[in-house]
Amino acid sequence: MNKTQRPIYLDHSATTPVDPRVVQAMAPYWSDAFGNASSTHTWGEDAATALERARQTAADVLGCRPTELSFTGSGTEADNLALRGAAWAARQTGRGNHLITTPVEHHAVGHTVEQLHDLFGFEVTLVPVDQYGQVDPDDVRRAIRPDTLLVSVMMANNEVGTVQPLVKIGRICQEHGVLFHTDAIQAAGRLPLELDDLHVDLTALSAHKFYGPKGVGLLYVRRNTPFVPAITGGGHERGRRPGTVNVAGAVGLATALRLAEEERVDAGHRLRALRDRLIAGVLDAVPETQLTGHPRQRLCHHASFAFRNVEGTSLVIALNLEGIAASSGAACSEGEAEPSFVLQAMGFTPDWGIGALRFSLGRSNTEADVDAVIEALPPIVERLRGED
Amino acid sequence: MNKTQRPIYLDHSATTPVDPRVVQAMAPYWSDAFGNASSTHTWGEDAATALERARQTAADVLGCRPTELSFTGSGTEADNLALRGAAWAARQTGRGNHLITTPVEHHAVGHTVEQLHDLFGFEVTLVPVDQYGQVDPDDVRRAIRPDTLLVSVMMANNEVGTVQPLVKIGRICQEHGVLFHTDAIQAAGRLPLELDDLHVDLTALSAHKFYGPKGVGLLYVRRNTPFVPAITGGGHERGRRPGTVNVAGAVGLATALRLAEEERVDAGHRLRALRDRLIAGVLDAVPETQLTGHPRQRLCHHASFAFRNVEGTSLVIALNLEGIAASSGAACSEGEAEPSFVLQAMGFTPDWGIGALRFSLGRSNTEADVDAVIEALPPIVERLRGED
Repeated sequence: MNKTQRPIYLDHSATTPVDPRVVQAMAPYWSDAFGNASSTHTWGEDAATALERARQTAADVLGCRPTELSFTGSGTEADNLALRGAAWAARQTGRGNHLITTPVEHHAVGHTVEQLHDLFGFEVTLVPVDQYGQVDPDDVRRAIRPDTLLVSVMMANNEVGTVQPLVKIGRICQEHGVLFHTDAIQAAGRLPLELDDLHVDLTALSAHKFYGPKGVGLLYVRRNTPFVPAITGGGHERGRRPGTVNVAGAVGLATALRLAEEERVDAGHRLRALRDRLIAGVLDAVPETQLTGHPRQRLCHHASFAFRNVEGTSLVIALNLEGIAASSGAACSEGEAEPSFVLQAMGFTPDWGIGALRFSLGRSNTEADVDAVIEALPPIVERLRGED
Repeated sequence: MNKTQRPIYLDHSATTPVDPRVVQAMAPYWSDAFGNASSTHTWGEDAATALERARQTAADVLGCRPTELSFTGSGTEADNLALRGAAWAARQTGRGNHLITTPVEHHAVGHTVEQLHDLFGFEVTLVPVDQYGQVDPDDVRRAIRPDTLLVSVMMANNEVGTVQPLVKIGRICQEHGVLFHTDAIQAAGRLPLELDDLHVDLTALSAHKFYGPKGVGLLYVRRNTPFVPAITGGGHERGRRPGTVNVAGAVGLATALRLAEEERVDAGHRLRALRDRLIAGVLDAVPETQLTGHPRQRLCHHASFAFRNVEGTSLVIALNLEGIAASSGAACSEGEAEPSFVLQAMGFTPDWGIGALRFSLGRSNTEADVDAVIEALPPIVERLRGED
C-alpha cells in the first residue's frame, strides 16, 4: 500500500464517482416520477417537465438553447450521432464528401471517421499535431477543400490533456462555411463551454466524466445544422436521438454539469496546484521521463508522462498493487499493448511511446495523494526497467 | 377522480416504475464501485466483475451465452445496432441487399428499415398482417429472395399486444439461411425468451419495460452472426456497442430481468385474469367498440381497443382527468393525430383507426382498478362522441 495507507484514485479522466447530490437528484425518477416523457398523461407530463428542466439547466451552463441539446446513451453515441448526422445530411444534399480531423482524436471520433471512409466512401484528411499534440489552425485552413463538409477537432485530449486552439479553428470553419464538431468529453466541467460563443456546430459531452452517471451523454447540434439521425425510431429528442429518454439520467447529467460549473474555477485552482506538484515531483524523481502534452495549455487535472523503456501497462499494474489507480493512455484503449497512437502522432519513438502513464486528479485527491505517488513511482520504474 | 380515489397507472407498455429491489441493486455502483469497467486497476476490475455478473444473469434468463449479449443505451439503440449491423455486414461482403419486415413494427425497426431503404438503397418487402396484426409465416417464406439478408418480425406488438408466430418464422429463416431479428422489447418479462431455442439471430430488449431503469437496453447477437457496429469507438462490449458501459444500468437491467423471469408465470396468471375482466367489461359497457389485436395470442397484460368515431388521444386526456393513465397506441408515436398505422395495416378504416386506446396492466394494478376503468370509460366515450 502507498504511504497514505488508503486507496488513491487518480483516474478521473476514465470516470468519476457520481456526486451524492446527483444521486439524490436522480432518486425520485426511478420508482416515483417514473413516467415516459412521451406519454400524454400526468405521469408522462411530470417526466417531461423534469426532462425539460434538466435540458434548460444544461443549456444555461453551455450557453446555448435547450432545443439544441439532446440527451443520449453515452458520449460515444453523441459523437457518433454528430459525425454521422452531419455526414449523411451532406450526402443527402450533395453538399460534400470530405472530412478533416486529427490523428489524436478519441476512438469515438477516430473510428467513426474511419468507418465513414472505409465503408461509406467519405474522404478524410488528417491534419498533423505538434510534439504537444496540438493542431496548427493554419493546417486546418489549408486542408479545407470545396467539398469539405466538416472539421472535427477535440477540445482537449484524453491521453495527454492538451487543449486545442478551438476558437481559431472554429473561426476558420465559419469563414469557409464548413461545419465544426468538437469532442468536449474531457473538457466538460473543466473548461468553460460557451457554445454560442465558440464557433462550434456539433459537440458531445458525457456525464460520467464530471461526477454524473454513466450511460448518459449530451449532443449539441447548433440550430439550422443539417442533420440526419444515425439512430432512428420514435420522434424523441427532436428526432435526433430516438428512444425513451432516460429521465433520471438526464436529471443526473444536468445536475452534475451545473455543480461542476459552479465549482469549476475554484476546483481548477486547487487541481492545477496539485497537478503541477505532481508533474514537477515525477519529472524530478524519475530519470528519462517526459511530460506528454502541452506544458501549459492542458487540462487542470491532467498529468501525463512518457517513461522511456518501460511499459505503461506494467506501471499501471504495479501502481495498482500500491493502491494507486492510474491509466496508460485511455481506458477505452486499455489492453492494447502497442505504443499509444496519440504519442506516436506526436512524434514519440516506440521506446518512449510504450511508456505512457496518465494521472488525472479529482475532488477526492489531496497533496498527500500526490506525494504518495511521487514516492511510490520511482522504485517501480527502476524495478521494471531492470527486469528488461 | 376515478372511483378508487387514487391514480391508476395502466400504461405499463409505455414504461414501468423501477422495482425497489433494482434500485437497491444499482445503488453501490453510483459513488462507491464507480470504476470504468475498461480500466485495468482494482476500481476497473470491480466494475468489470459486476458487469460480467450482470451479463451472466441476463444470459441465464435468456438461454444464451454471455458473449452474445451487449448492453446498450436503450432498446431503440439495440434494434438499430441489430438491423444496421446486419445490413452493413451483408453489404461489406456482398451477401445481400434485401430486407423483409412487417408494417406493424415499432418505429425503432420501421424507421430504421425505412432509412436503410431511402438513404442506403436496401430493398424492402413488407409482409402483410391479418386483422389481428399477425403475420402468416408462409408470406415470409414467399417473400424470401436469393438476396434477402434479414427478416425482422417483432415478438409482440406494442400497440395491439399480438404475439407473432415466431418459432415458425425463425425456422423458415433458418432453412433459407437468412438472418432473423426480432424486437422483443414488449415481450421481455412477459413471454419466455429462450433465445438459443428460438431461431433468432438478433434481438433487442429494454430494461424500463420490465421494471428496470430507463436508458439501458440489451442487444443479442447470436455467435458467428456477421455484424458491423453502427456505433464506433473503443472496443467495449466486444466492439458491438462502444462507449463506457453503464455498470449500474447493466446491473439494474439484469436484476430486473431475473426478477421478472422469476415472477413471470404467477404474474402472467394474475394479469391475464385482470386483462380478460377489463376486455369483457369494456366491450360490454361501450357500444361500437372492438378489441384490437389477437383475442388469445396476445400479451398477458395488454388490452387494446378501437372505439368508432372518437379520438384515442381525446380518450387518453379525458381518462387522465379521472386519474387513469392509458395510451392511444404507442407512447413513442403520441402527438400524431393520424389513425394508428398499426390499425391501418390491420385493415381498420379511419373511423375506427383514430380511436385506438391501450391499457397495459402491471404489478400495481388490482381488480378495483379494472372496475374503475369499466365504470369511468362509457360516459367519457359517450360525451366525446356527442361532441362531434
